[in-house]
Amino acid sequence: MNRLRYSVSLSYEVMDPMADFLLNIEAARTSRQVVVAEQLTFPPSIQTTHYTDAVLCNRLLRMRAPKGHLAIRYEAVVDIDHRLDDCDQLSEVPVAELPFDVWHYLAPSRYCESDRLMEFAMREFGGMQRGYARVYAIREWVRNHVRFLSRSTNERTSAVDTIVERTGVCRDFAHLMIGICRALSIPARMSSSLDYGADPTMGAPDFHAVVEVYLSHRWYLLDPSGVSIPTGLLRIGTGRDAADIPFAAIFGKVESKRPFVEIQAVTDTAAGIEMPMFTAKAISTW
Amino acid sequence: MNRLRYSVSLSYEVMDPMADFLLNIEAARTSRQVVVAEQLTFPPSIQTTHYTDAVLCNRLLRMRAPKGHLAIRYEAVVDIDHRLDDCDQLSEVPVAELPFDVWHYLAPSRYCESDRLMEFAMREFGGMQRGYARVYAIREWVRNHVRFLSRSTNERTSAVDTIVERTGVCRDFAHLMIGICRALSIPARMSSSLDYGADPTMGAPDFHAVVEVYLSHRWYLLDPSGVSIPTGLLRIGTGRDAADIPFAAIFGKVESKRPFVEIQAVTDTAAGIEMPMFTAKAISTW
Amino acid sequence: MNRLRYSVSLSYEVMDPMADFLLNIEAARTSRQVVVAEQLTFPPSIQTTHYTDAVLCNRLLRMRAPKGHLAIRYEAVVDIDHRLDDCDQLSEVPVAELPFDVWHYLAPSRYCESDRLMEFAMREFGGMQRGYARVYAIREWVRNHVRFLSRSTNERTSAVDTIVERTGVCRDFAHLMIGICRALSIPARMSSSLDYGADPTMGAPDFHAVVEVYLSHRWYLLDPSGVSIPTGLLRIGTGRDAADIPFAAIFGKVESKRPFVEIQAVTDTAAGIEMPMFTAKAISTW
Amino acid sequence: MNRLRYSVSLSYEVMDPMADFLLNIEAARTSRQVVVAEQLTFPPSIQTTHYTDAVLCNRLLRMRAPKGHLAIRYEAVVDIDHRLDDCDQLSEVPVAELPFDVWHYLAPSRYCESDRLMEFAMREFGGMQRGYARVYAIREWVRNHVRFLSRSTNERTSAVDTIVERTGVCRDFAHLMIGICRALSIPARMSSSLDYGADPTMGAPDFHAVVEVYLSHRWYLLDPSGVSIPTGLLRIGTGRDAADIPFAAIFGKVESKRPFVEIQAVTDTAAGIEMPMFTAKAISTW
Repeated sequence: MNRLRYSVSLSYEVMDPMADFLLNIEAARTSRQVVVAEQLTFPPSIQTTHYTDAVLCNRLLRMRAPKGHLAIRYEAVVDIDHRLDDCDQLSEVPVAELPFDVWHYLAPSRYCESDRLMEFAMREFGGMQRGYARVYAIREWVRNHVRFLSRSTNERTSAVDTIVERTGVCRDFAHLMIGICRALSIPARMSSSLDYGADPTMGAPDFHAVVEVYLSHRWYLLDPSGVSIPTGLLRIGTGRDAADIPFAAIFGKVESKRPFVEIQAVTDTAAGIEMPMFTAKAISTW
Repeated sequence: MNRLRYSVSLSYEVMDPMADFLLNIEAARTSRQVVVAEQLTFPPSIQTTHYTDAVLCNRLLRMRAPKGHLAIRYEAVVDIDHRLDDCDQLSEVPVAELPFDVWHYLAPSRYCESDRLMEFAMREFGGMQRGYARVYAIREWVRNHVRFLSRSTNERTSAVDTIVERTGVCRDFAHLMIGICRALSIPARMSSSLDYGADPTMGAPDFHAVVEVYLSHRWYLLDPSGVSIPTGLLRIGTGRDAADIPFAAIFGKVESKRPFVEIQAVTDTAAGIEMPMFTAKAISTW
Repeated sequence: MNRLRYSVSLSYEVMDPMADFLLNIEAARTSRQVVVAEQLTFPPSIQTTHYTDAVLCNRLLRMRAPKGHLAIRYEAVVDIDHRLDDCDQLSEVPVAELPFDVWHYLAPSRYCESDRLMEFAMREFGGMQRGYARVYAIREWVRNHVRFLSRSTNERTSAVDTIVERTGVCRDFAHLMIGICRALSIPARMSSSLDYGADPTMGAPDFHAVVEVYLSHRWYLLDPSGVSIPTGLLRIGTGRDAADIPFAAIFGKVESKRPFVEIQAVTDTAAGIEMPMFTAKAISTW
Repeated sequence: MNRLRYSVSLSYEVMDPMADFLLNIEAARTSRQVVVAEQLTFPPSIQTTHYTDAVLCNRLLRMRAPKGHLAIRYEAVVDIDHRLDDCDQLSEVPVAELPFDVWHYLAPSRYCESDRLMEFAMREFGGMQRGYARVYAIREWVRNHVRFLSRSTNERTSAVDTIVERTGVCRDFAHLMIGICRALSIPARMSSSLDYGADPTMGAPDFHAVVEVYLSHRWYLLDPSGVSIPTGLLRIGTGRDAADIPFAAIFGKVESKRPFVEIQAVTDTAAGIEMPMFTAKAISTW
């Protein structure tokens, strides 16, 4: 088991008389992720509404804020106990056996135009043995053919751009991997997370986008950017792609500072709480 | 009230030993749409599974079919009693008051890249009085700036292509209108329908894509292609865009014929069942 | 007549053992633009080659530079005496009468995908009276439908992006106007210039991209971004679009500073040398 | 030496009172390609103008034709004596030594967005030994990663589309290869040709697009689609990409039939005229 302590600090300047925010910064509560403690701080005058998606466990926080400065801080201590499975045991689920509510994760989406990647995906991966190994080969392909380059892309960049331009940040790696998986009829989606153990050379801690792939009737997590220690990934939001899970959707004229994120692993050997470590196993956070 | 009788005949040649189909051709059952009678015909040896989406009412039919010819026919008699409201009474719902499950219809999707249409939408429609009139102005803009041209687009064409190239078919008109609405924070989505009263000069009856827009906490239907009589629209599927609601998603090597669709209005004056007619009112099918 | 004094200072850090530069920063010498004085300064050890395009008058300067700092400065005093014609007298040249070497300026190019803008251009401008007035209407459309926004685009942005996203800088305005003109069979191309009289609110002086349109067998200059005083435009390069006329094409690993440009108008009333001023006439710089 | 006899028959229905045509169907006359005999047939009432590009040798034919049917036929007997060089002897020309009029073939163009392919090209081919072998490796990459599929693309498809979708016809193969070469600072352009010896399974004879690459100060011809016998390629037009060299540019409302092309090799052993054959040598047609 791992324990992570993190905080997210958001800072905005509202220019309109009133602006609306939909935030997704709180740790998801799942069977494998327990929020031990948490605290949300925001100006007392602000109205908020909370909502938790019953299936995806995304926790949404809606706020209206008046003109002026708005500071929001969330901090939490979260225990995560990811499921580790033998990769060899995992198989792709034939489309005939997919649950109906998983079908949507085969469809192309804003940033994952799988419909345009069919020929490429079939040519590159179509002949491979199906299962986790094929999914891992996709992850390796993306990692080896795209260069991590800060600020090389923007919020309009999609999988099709990335397969052309071959540079990007974590969300671009994830979108391309998702697009390829769907092109092969493997359900795939995006998870926004916080990433303990990010290579400090990659810059300050930040939200991290990773991929979930549906194998053996369970969602498994892979990080095609290769910058995280996956056992140290803490789930925040889950959706088809980045369009579904912005950490902040903002309506109104607002100037934003970059979010400030801190994260650390807490250990307690007596309690069996260890540092996140790399594993050769398949990781499920559900 | 209107009564429509329709049939959809699908014809495939399966080339692989086995192929999978996910069909969405059956009439949705909603509070305003009653299936009076229906019949689904397919080869007796075929395995099928049925599923109905609890919220959207999409009825999905999954089939596995072996190599060889596959003929499927669905016919139904459906009573529709669309709600008609005064346009003037309808208002846009402030984002702060949107139900959480409606938020997804603000996000960009595969064919509706609303994130790229913000400046255009604000410039063209940002200053207008909010409400049905603004939505109708968007519908008119799309109708007046895009030319209906059969076979000018394909299944990869998106709203961004259409605002550049200005030709398309019903789904392209719908995608562009949806994209513009979302860019203005008006929730919008696509409905696949059958269209009684299609202008016969537009060709044989076919599935028809229209737009639903969220106003006054209800979904209202508009047809930016202008080729249908909206009171005669029969709902089949509802989703973010065409990626969500193909009438047939096919997995495996299959040769498809164009679907053959027949539709007619049934009248029974004594029973109050009339021909679909144009109306100046806002139409909701929920 | 106008006299402009300008200087361009370039500063590079070459990281490779050797890097190649192709610069286009010198004032073109044309029948209407006389270089009164000029001076090019660069490290004495550097090898250079000069080339002037016989038709377009672009002056290219090739350099090889070794690892280390490279500073280049060009300054010139240039007399310009643009031709001013009555707009009403100018007519579009029928394609049957276009000189063969002008045909290339009808073809789509990297940043001006006129082939995708045909329907739009015909619908918006196809019914207008042909001639300068139609070209001016295109210029006005672009100016009124695109917002000048620094850093909103990059070197990959093309006319198709701009008609979707409706923001950009001078080169984006120019590319879109060129694309629309070509879609209407009006030859159009780009000129890189220095812009006396740029609105100081638009930032420091910089290279400026404007449009040339072929009317009455002569090239006329228009600035769809509207930020310059066209009589004060000094021609540097001419090409199909920005791909043809970068002020600096660099081969090798080089860190670039933003070019530093200074420009001022010199007056000498006795000699008939005046300040550039706005004019309602059509301007040709050939 | 090879001798080819070919004919091109064009058939149009002019709908407007008058339409303009710019045709590029005549065999280029170069030092290695001699037109032994030729005949152009068109209605006697039609006005035509001829033009030959001094550098590229493209022969353009301009016509105005009135409403009604227009049939044009060109036939020629052409001797071609392509230069064959040892591949090992050919080297890439450093940018510092490129003639100035070759620089344009490094710039991105409508269908060859080399600016977006830099990272891919460097990653895939940047480390290879420079010279013909590297160019041939690019040709092989394109041939092996794109599937020839008739009607899978259209006249808007560019290199960027092809690297995503991985299907296309000869012009798409050529555009992608050109784009990759330019991204590596290897000048490259397109040649439209007629192709003796096309695999009959590829369909009837048609115009064929191939690539020219600048090595050792000469242009060499490669066919990335792999469907032709390159010694049997007869040059018609040369340009940056397909935008420069349509076989017919048409202005006005015209219905076009697909061009009808016939081609055959003539042999005369006594005169040293042989059948085109595959060669392992590098081919230059200049």
